[in-house]
Amino acid sequence: MQTIGYAAQTAETPLAPFAFERRDLRANDVAIEILYCGVCHSDLHQARNDWGFSTYPLVPGHEIVGRVIDTGAGVTRHKAGDRVAIGCIVDSCMECDQCHAGEEQLCRNVVTQTYNDHDRVTGDPTFGGYSRHIVVREEFVLSVPDALDLAKAAPLLCAGITTWSPLRTWGVGPGSRVGVIGLGGLGHMAVKLAHAMGAHVTVISRNDAKQADALALGAEALLVSADADAMAAAANSFDLIIDTIPVRHDVSPYMPLLDVDSTLVIVGQLGPIDETSTLPFLMARRRLSGSPIGGIAETQEMLDFCARMNILPECEMIAIQDIHAAFERMERADVRYRFVIDMASMPEAA
Amino acid sequence: MQTIGYAAQTAETPLAPFAFERRDLRANDVAIEILYCGVCHSDLHQARNDWGFSTYPLVPGHEIVGRVIDTGAGVTRHKAGDRVAIGCIVDSCMECDQCHAGEEQLCRNVVTQTYNDHDRVTGDPTFGGYSRHIVVREEFVLSVPDALDLAKAAPLLCAGITTWSPLRTWGVGPGSRVGVIGLGGLGHMAVKLAHAMGAHVTVISRNDAKQADALALGAEALLVSADADAMAAAANSFDLIIDTIPVRHDVSPYMPLLDVDSTLVIVGQLGPIDETSTLPFLMARRRLSGSPIGGIAETQEMLDFCARMNILPECEMIAIQDIHAAFERMERADVRYRFVIDMASMPEAA
Repeated sequence: MQTIGYAAQTAETPLAPFAFERRDLRANDVAIEILYCGVCHSDLHQARNDWGFSTYPLVPGHEIVGRVIDTGAGVTRHKAGDRVAIGCIVDSCMECDQCHAGEEQLCRNVVTQTYNDHDRVTGDPTFGGYSRHIVVREEFVLSVPDALDLAKAAPLLCAGITTWSPLRTWGVGPGSRVGVIGLGGLGHMAVKLAHAMGAHVTVISRNDAKQADALALGAEALLVSADADAMAAAANSFDLIIDTIPVRHDVSPYMPLLDVDSTLVIVGQLGPIDETSTLPFLMARRRLSGSPIGGIAETQEMLDFCARMNILPECEMIAIQDIHAAFERMERADVRYRFVIDMASMPEAA
Repeated sequence: MQTIGYAAQTAETPLAPFAFERRDLRANDVAIEILYCGVCHSDLHQARNDWGFSTYPLVPGHEIVGRVIDTGAGVTRHKAGDRVAIGCIVDSCMECDQCHAGEEQLCRNVVTQTYNDHDRVTGDPTFGGYSRHIVVREEFVLSVPDALDLAKAAPLLCAGITTWSPLRTWGVGPGSRVGVIGLGGLGHMAVKLAHAMGAHVTVISRNDAKQADALALGAEALLVSADADAMAAAANSFDLIIDTIPVRHDVSPYMPLLDVDSTLVIVGQLGPIDETSTLPFLMARRRLSGSPIGGIAETQEMLDFCARMNILPECEMIAIQDIHAAFERMERADVRYRFVIDMASMPEAA
């Protein structure tokens, strides 16, 4: 199928219209008309080759919602017209212990990413959701419950699952004391989800500029990390801290906030973090961990939870032509809280 | 009671004989004649004020075994003649959630350390086990089972419990894949204990010089950390890694050795560790943690386990007069695997 997207042709060039072919349907494939696609910070990183493994042309986008337009001969899970979604992964080996455990994101044989990767069958490059159509193996196509507004659901596919998964892994529930460092795309979802799970949520931020927003999103309090007295008073007071800071930083100020045997989970930063001290680790068996997205079943669970609890990301709708301005504003953290591309704005031809 | 020990009078002066008073027995106190005291790396650090909080005179020693010689009026747990031991802590608040949970080492109101600390009642300095006698609150006095050789049991009180506690916290048992980084005082106990718990133990060492020792202590294999191919082949192959390196280091080479959701526990280094990358954390929810000694009940459990399984540290017996040579050899890691002071060598008077 011929389609059109927005692609970076090199690390230095801006995204521009790009005509390309989506593969013919294999027996287990689903063809989707993309209606909306969220804009993730990693789209920007990969378009610019910040992580050093980008290949071009590169079509970003892994927060995808749309409708099924066709299915392969063997597809049983989806049919034309279904409201569906695609997240960060489109395939895995489906044979290892992790895949069998529903942890496809941790596949022993490496997952296939939605873009900037290669199809497991043909080796062809994968292209993401900044495009009119996508073709994906049925097991990696999620169902979007009717109760969820399609125009706002897209960010759940990365920002949502990336924060949902650690909340589930570390057993957050009623009464859990959850801290959320940073109130951006990931952070605002962490607050909404943890609050809906019954947790007592505190946003941890450099200053109190986001206090009203934090409370409106469901937090009980905002802790100012620059306030040494407030930080000292908050020692040992969290069961889990979700650290959404997207750049290199120092976890040392936050570790003492954890109670005994509790964990700080990094979800936003791939790469080096600053030197730290073992002292808060040894003194209370505190733990530092990280977490990537989640498995397919867990992502469906999150979508169903959001439908049931009426949770949606805060979105700012843009046309695909606005993507460069959106990238620039995202770099300044000037977005509340996630840009979503309305794919109706995509040109008919390159 | 008048007694004698070896004390540092300043950070720069060598330990020397020091006459001092042990407190009169309170109703819940036990007076102990010390027979043996292990030499821990932290004794050296604190004698020299490496951590910046030493007060002088300072009598080191927190791996103490001996016999009860007297008891306070209300003591019910111990009687004269009993074989007993004291570890790193001699008191705690006994009222907080951690103390109630048997985690006195994590007391919310700060434990009282065996030396270089202050008695909770009088505020007098605490003096450690490089001495003829000690007086300790009965709840912090451990029983040494008859099956344990008193002359070798001392290092269990710090090196033993410091490795036992994380093995228990992280649920090591038959078939667990345990790595032990470093084969010194702590490392050799981690190997013996994990092996006795039924784990498959691998020593991780800079070179293969300790291969034969590692196998003799109960390890199944030695992994050379300088061998990039061997390290790559060992990726994802450990459920728990006990990191006993006693100096600043980089955990980055070891993190990828952990399997999904598995933990590297630092037990030997208080202070800064090198900058690291979040990549192995995010890619498999790996965890970095730390662990300090253990609670009193857990320490007794460890002593009983060692008696049942016939486990004792490898000790090199020294006279108190040899302590400076022992410190120097310990700094060169030239000890297999723990120095123990025979207190019969202590002079009668300063």
